[in-house]
Amino acid sequence: MPDAFLSRIEGVLGPGALLVSRESVEKYCRDETEGLFMRPEAVALALDTGQVSAILRLASRFGVPVTPRTGGTGVTGGALPVAGGLVLSLERMNSILEIDRDNLAAVVQPGVVTGVLHRAVEEKGLFYPPDPASLDSCTIGGNVAECAGGPRAVKYGVTGNFVTGIECVLASGAIERWGGKVKKDVAGYDIIGLLVGSEGTLAVVTEIVLRLLPKPAASADLLVPFGGVGAAAACASAVVGSGTVPAAIEFMDALCIRAAKDLLGRLPRGVEGAEAALIFQIDGSNPETVERESLKVGEICQACGAGDVFVAASSSEKERLWEMRRKLREALLARCRTKFSEDVAVPPASLPGLVLGLKDIERKYRVEIACFGHAGDGNVHVNVLRGERDEQAWAGLRKEIMADIFTLAVGLGGTLSGEHGIGLAKKDFMHLKFSRNQIRLMKRIKAAFDPAGILNPGKIF
Amino acid sequence: MPDAFLSRIEGVLGPGALLVSRESVEKYCRDETEGLFMRPEAVALALDTGQVSAILRLASRFGVPVTPRTGGTGVTGGALPVAGGLVLSLERMNSILEIDRDNLAAVVQPGVVTGVLHRAVEEKGLFYPPDPASLDSCTIGGNVAECAGGPRAVKYGVTGNFVTGIECVLASGAIERWGGKVKKDVAGYDIIGLLVGSEGTLAVVTEIVLRLLPKPAASADLLVPFGGVGAAAACASAVVGSGTVPAAIEFMDALCIRAAKDLLGRLPRGVEGAEAALIFQIDGSNPETVERESLKVGEICQACGAGDVFVAASSSEKERLWEMRRKLREALLARCRTKFSEDVAVPPASLPGLVLGLKDIERKYRVEIACFGHAGDGNVHVNVLRGERDEQAWAGLRKEIMADIFTLAVGLGGTLSGEHGIGLAKKDFMHLKFSRNQIRLMKRIKAAFDPAGILNPGKIF
Repeated sequence: MPDAFLSRIEGVLGPGALLVSRESVEKYCRDETEGLFMRPEAVALALDTGQVSAILRLASRFGVPVTPRTGGTGVTGGALPVAGGLVLSLERMNSILEIDRDNLAAVVQPGVVTGVLHRAVEEKGLFYPPDPASLDSCTIGGNVAECAGGPRAVKYGVTGNFVTGIECVLASGAIERWGGKVKKDVAGYDIIGLLVGSEGTLAVVTEIVLRLLPKPAASADLLVPFGGVGAAAACASAVVGSGTVPAAIEFMDALCIRAAKDLLGRLPRGVEGAEAALIFQIDGSNPETVERESLKVGEICQACGAGDVFVAASSSEKERLWEMRRKLREALLARCRTKFSEDVAVPPASLPGLVLGLKDIERKYRVEIACFGHAGDGNVHVNVLRGERDEQAWAGLRKEIMADIFTLAVGLGGTLSGEHGIGLAKKDFMHLKFSRNQIRLMKRIKAAFDPAGILNPGKIF
Repeated sequence: MPDAFLSRIEGVLGPGALLVSRESVEKYCRDETEGLFMRPEAVALALDTGQVSAILRLASRFGVPVTPRTGGTGVTGGALPVAGGLVLSLERMNSILEIDRDNLAAVVQPGVVTGVLHRAVEEKGLFYPPDPASLDSCTIGGNVAECAGGPRAVKYGVTGNFVTGIECVLASGAIERWGGKVKKDVAGYDIIGLLVGSEGTLAVVTEIVLRLLPKPAASADLLVPFGGVGAAAACASAVVGSGTVPAAIEFMDALCIRAAKDLLGRLPRGVEGAEAALIFQIDGSNPETVERESLKVGEICQACGAGDVFVAASSSEKERLWEMRRKLREALLARCRTKFSEDVAVPPASLPGLVLGLKDIERKYRVEIACFGHAGDGNVHVNVLRGERDEQAWAGLRKEIMADIFTLAVGLGGTLSGEHGIGLAKKDFMHLKFSRNQIRLMKRIKAAFDPAGILNPGKIF
């Protein structure tokens, strides 16, 4: 990276906002992907859209690769500077600019933490559904980059379903605004939809307008233990097909339950010793409807072989239940030295087939696989635990196991990723899902936005 | 169009499916856009994806423009062959290939009429929400091309929110499948989202996988007359901001009500003589919830100055109510010799400002403007009636009035089109909403799909 470039960037940012020392860039060498570490040559902490524009203009002129980043909680290496160069961090652009009750809209900067937005809109009786498990550390910018989901996606949809406006900076430095608070817009191509989930490869998103909903007045959370993963998966499919639409249908297997016990010390009522469990959240505009639908879901569970249905009786019981769910990743990591996890998705009715196929992979490679995730969407986090294997043996095996998992999911009509993105971690497997023609087309779209390829190079394909 | 091309196309289609005579192509010279008539050199009636692929391969080789078409009910000229050449009609590809209850999905060909799909899925207890007013003649293919909406979009979203899979043929003739029945998919760019609403300019869509919902068990329809359009618009905004989410919030002004009376002979209870009216549909999983929410909406209406709230008491009353709404376009056309209509959308809270601004335009040009549409989304069909003006004077005035309407909508944070698309009719106004840079970017995306520009040339930009 030329000195002239760095000194110009420093001029744009002002003092203290360009990090170059080994220690100061340390935090930007990793995200939450297991086993990846990549050092940027420098890190720019931008404060506003004007700075982002000036930085990209300079990067274009000097041909310096730029990797955008906000929370750094991604799990596919999307925020890592594989080509070196500059990490452009938007973490300081973390203001909620507006919550507009009349238009049911929020205007936010990309560095706003998702959980902070949840609380801010809920205080006003509003609701922003997307709820990745990392909601207390991930940001709206990252959620937009990956089109993040979460448990409530089964009823409400993913991040992309809530973005109605975007301000972005193109690789050239041009600042462009698309959409706004308007709820329906078919003028021109759907550039907003294209930017969402593009993993920072097309433009740097500097402001986001989100659609909000009224906050549901009532909700209930159910925990249902099962005697086997097959029965739990079949039950999730049965609920999806039943005509009831829970806000969330989460799934976890016995290994997840044991790991949660080890990490948390105790578990919510009823789940200890179960071979699998489902968590349902049912919400609605009044308690009677919620109660009626909860009973219906409970009946389906019992018809699918569940013994008991535990309804969280207090807000602390609800919190404990969801804490268990959100800490599963941490719990599994505490249990094994390292693991990798893939968030494949299949059509909901193929969930039992996916679970069965994963058992075969477990046997074939003699590994432990722990599964949890969004059963209602057929979106499962498949965690393959390293166990006692040494690092070298593990590295060799990992790619083979990943290929088998993706082949299984794609064979069931599914996909490589339901919500984490492709990033660096899955790019070698894109050919399992896409034809050469399709990948070529996506690369041409990338070139239409970023002809010199300076934006987050080396990702997706 | 070279003879060699035509004879090759005839070979692909078999006898009787290539139309060339003046009379046989007559129906393909127009869609439902007022005042547009364009003659194709030939019309190909394709029967399957293989034929579409062969036709596009030949068109690419011979450099012949191809305009895809299904129902021909568009109102922006999107299906008209502005550059001559071949109209590729998919009207015979009209099968519902599968309704998959377990996965809440339907697989359909592009020529399936939207209302036919509604009835087919509802027979199985399922629900496909998008409901353009033309639902008895428009097709899913056209709905996908324009990202069509309809009254129920305010609660459920537009066509794009329901498309999870697409099979398409690229300009080269290559057949590509994207997505499927999987509900969450972030692998690669969102090509499906980009194709939806691209008005046949990027690829020809030959099969569509749609997400379905369980059919709501109960619904109520309310008709609420108001003393003025301002009060009705303000009431619609108040309901949106209230925390209740009706399935539909439709709006119509006095001129619409009078035109409907003239066309239909009689009107639903309560609306005759009103200066404006709102129609609400409230749906839910049980009658008690629907009743509770209906009461709440009724109270808001009365707080906004409505005298009475009429609840449709029988299914025939419901049908009469929605018939009135769906026939408004026809009713207005019967009233004046010709009109043009623009489906601008603004943020919901700006609806009163839009209605007010349109009154100014009415006065400025001494025209009659009739408004109806999707008040809950801020999406209004603005109908400007020609009245007694002669054709030449009207042609001159039309562009000026359109520019004023679009400038008003964009100035309120809105857009040129909420659901009809840009097509031919609005392309001269794209600069009111998009920068040169933005239009250049969209053109580069078009070129990434269709480098020779044979697919529906002359549309959007």
